[in-house]
Amino acid sequence: YSVRQTESAYRYRDIVVRKQDGFTHILLSTKTENNTLNPDVMKEIQSAMATAASDDSKLVLLGAVGNTFCYGLDFLYFIRRLTDDRKKESVKMAETIRAFVDTFIQFKKPIVVAVNGPAVGLGAALLPLCDVVWANEKAWFQTPYTVYGQTPDTCSSFTFPRIMGVASANEMLLSGRKLTAQEACAKGLVSQVLWPSTFSQEVMLRIKELVSVNSLVLRESKALMRSTNRSALEQANERECEALKRVWGSSQGTDSILKYLQKKLDQL
Amino acid sequence: YSVRQTESAYRYRDIVVRKQDGFTHILLSTKTENNTLNPDVMKEIQSAMATAASDDSKLVLLGAVGNTFCYGLDFLYFIRRLTDDRKKESVKMAETIRAFVDTFIQFKKPIVVAVNGPAVGLGAALLPLCDVVWANEKAWFQTPYTVYGQTPDTCSSFTFPRIMGVASANEMLLSGRKLTAQEACAKGLVSQVLWPSTFSQEVMLRIKELVSVNSLVLRESKALMRSTNRSALEQANERECEALKRVWGSSQGTDSILKYLQKKLDQL
Amino acid sequence: YSVRQTESAYRYRDIVVRKQDGFTHILLSTKTENNTLNPDVMKEIQSAMATAASDDSKLVLLGAVGNTFCYGLDFLYFIRRLTDDRKKESVKMAETIRAFVDTFIQFKKPIVVAVNGPAVGLGAALLPLCDVVWANEKAWFQTPYTVYGQTPDTCSSFTFPRIMGVASANEMLLSGRKLTAQEACAKGLVSQVLWPSTFSQEVMLRIKELVSVNSLVLRESKALMRSTNRSALEQANERECEALKRVWGSSQGTDSILKYLQKKLDQL
Repeated sequence: YSVRQTESAYRYRDIVVRKQDGFTHILLSTKTENNTLNPDVMKEIQSAMATAASDDSKLVLLGAVGNTFCYGLDFLYFIRRLTDDRKKESVKMAETIRAFVDTFIQFKKPIVVAVNGPAVGLGAALLPLCDVVWANEKAWFQTPYTVYGQTPDTCSSFTFPRIMGVASANEMLLSGRKLTAQEACAKGLVSQVLWPSTFSQEVMLRIKELVSVNSLVLRESKALMRSTNRSALEQANERECEALKRVWGSSQGTDSILKYLQKKLDQL
Repeated sequence: YSVRQTESAYRYRDIVVRKQDGFTHILLSTKTENNTLNPDVMKEIQSAMATAASDDSKLVLLGAVGNTFCYGLDFLYFIRRLTDDRKKESVKMAETIRAFVDTFIQFKKPIVVAVNGPAVGLGAALLPLCDVVWANEKAWFQTPYTVYGQTPDTCSSFTFPRIMGVASANEMLLSGRKLTAQEACAKGLVSQVLWPSTFSQEVMLRIKELVSVNSLVLRESKALMRSTNRSALEQANERECEALKRVWGSSQGTDSILKYLQKKLDQL
Repeated sequence: YSVRQTESAYRYRDIVVRKQDGFTHILLSTKTENNTLNPDVMKEIQSAMATAASDDSKLVLLGAVGNTFCYGLDFLYFIRRLTDDRKKESVKMAETIRAFVDTFIQFKKPIVVAVNGPAVGLGAALLPLCDVVWANEKAWFQTPYTVYGQTPDTCSSFTFPRIMGVASANEMLLSGRKLTAQEACAKGLVSQVLWPSTFSQEVMLRIKELVSVNSLVLRESKALMRSTNRSALEQANERECEALKRVWGSSQGTDSILKYLQKKLDQL
């Protein structure tokens, strides 16, 4: 997207928020590379969503500026903290993620995602916590948690097996298999794949239609869809964050992130 | 199907029921356009299913006469009632649907569906409450509830996300995306797509094989398959009907149906 | 696989077990035709898995020698027992299966399956109890339980509807539809299909990568993935085995197996 500057540019540093007619458009545009998430970015998203929850927005449209959707956690940020005080910081990190994920679980209005480019780690795992996912044909999806020496987050250990079966879920979560947009659509992670050249327009057309639905029906429909597994999602989030504390709190865990960052450095 | 007249023609007005060797064939053939359902049609189906439940039928084959499977609820019928006494009639409507859907949830013998043509709204949402679904290549599937200003019914808010993932389910239930038979099969709504020219024969061949299975195995198998989510289906049905009461009981809800009917009229 | 003889050849009769660097490779190689399972084979597998659970193996790789993966239960063995004392033996058979299946439900390390050829009955139903499933392009999958006059086993009445939706699951479990490797992959039974000529090498490459993951992450990841449905799987196993007792304990059930074996004999 080319994004007109709005007043939101003054309130947020790493996201762009545009209040539109009937919806709120939140775009990742982080100072970090590849729209990775650190606690500051997460808090900005949570704050923008809290505003959208209480104003007259009928839904939230989540996207990103540029050619990347989101590469997940900002490991450079996290490793600095972990090497400082592993026990304390691993707990803080896990709690930050838990609260961020819970914001999506509890959100009462539909969340539509426009996946403009690569969605990696938490950036891919977030999709099943949203409601409709439209992907650019050039986007791809990967959750290479084991490469970071990490266990699954963002409820993916619960949602991925539900959506695509345990065989495909494990190949993504354990073996880090990368999916094209078409593959992600066939497996149920994505609602529909749209052509790159008209991606933004196609998304906006569909958003306009959704926004024309009366708000009582939208709210009740989302409540119906989510009521069966809200508590299961809360429990999955809880369990995953407890596992993250154990992994990041161990020397094995910190070493794995360091090894991953070293490998990335070597590639440059 | 070309349907030979049987004694059932005298007992039912909107469906044709043929007791065959080992199974009961129920065909929609309503006086309303496009096999839409009003309380009378629903009660006829429930009555035919009650008979099939207690006689020596090993299974029920559900289909329709003509080129349409079922367009869901008969909104012309419903809007007449709603404009009469919104509060009272919205409750009656929701209760009628609740009981109809519950008949499918509780049915102990396999229900096979031969989807000969378009399956819309409740007509599509009903499929996951049945056991095997064979579709004519020309059939298509759509649940444009938001166009009617309505929330999902027939447990679709529970079954659709389970079957195809939340991203695809929401695209159908919120955005009203229309699926071809092949797409519906890829997403798991349909067991297999069969060619139009030999559709009836292919269905009958497969039914003959199923009917040759001993009845103890059929009954025990269905019980096993359904035991894990019967109570979840009952709760989904309950929740959805409560939401329908709130929506139809509001002026927004009635207006939406009127707007939808007006648009259809304008198109003629 | 061409299998080098190892010491395991002396301890097991119907399987080959090779302790490799970081994992245990268990290969079916039964004296029975088509790697069918009788209580002796099952006990050997359970014993090999118990060893792998407690040694330094990070995961188990399950496969088979030859061109067949596994044709499920050894009906020739079972029918001899059933015709002896139906009531007593049906209970014993069901209990043997229950314990075998429970071994897979409770296993705490990842189980990877290399499906080299046809996977039939219990041999196909076992796959969703494992974690990653790679299939040779020539493999195929079928659960023709009703042909054996049998109800679903190995939790398939629970896992199949979850993975592929009720419409596809019933077509496999009631109508015995045979799936190609590609179809099984599209439906979520299989993680990925690999080419026959390089199947073993491709599997080994991927195993090597998985084995390089630190064991804390592997164990915690598997625990997260399975925690949501372990008790549901235990209950499904229990229910299915109770149904098997009722079916096999009836004259209908024994007759069905005899009829099936007679038909197979006639085909020779």
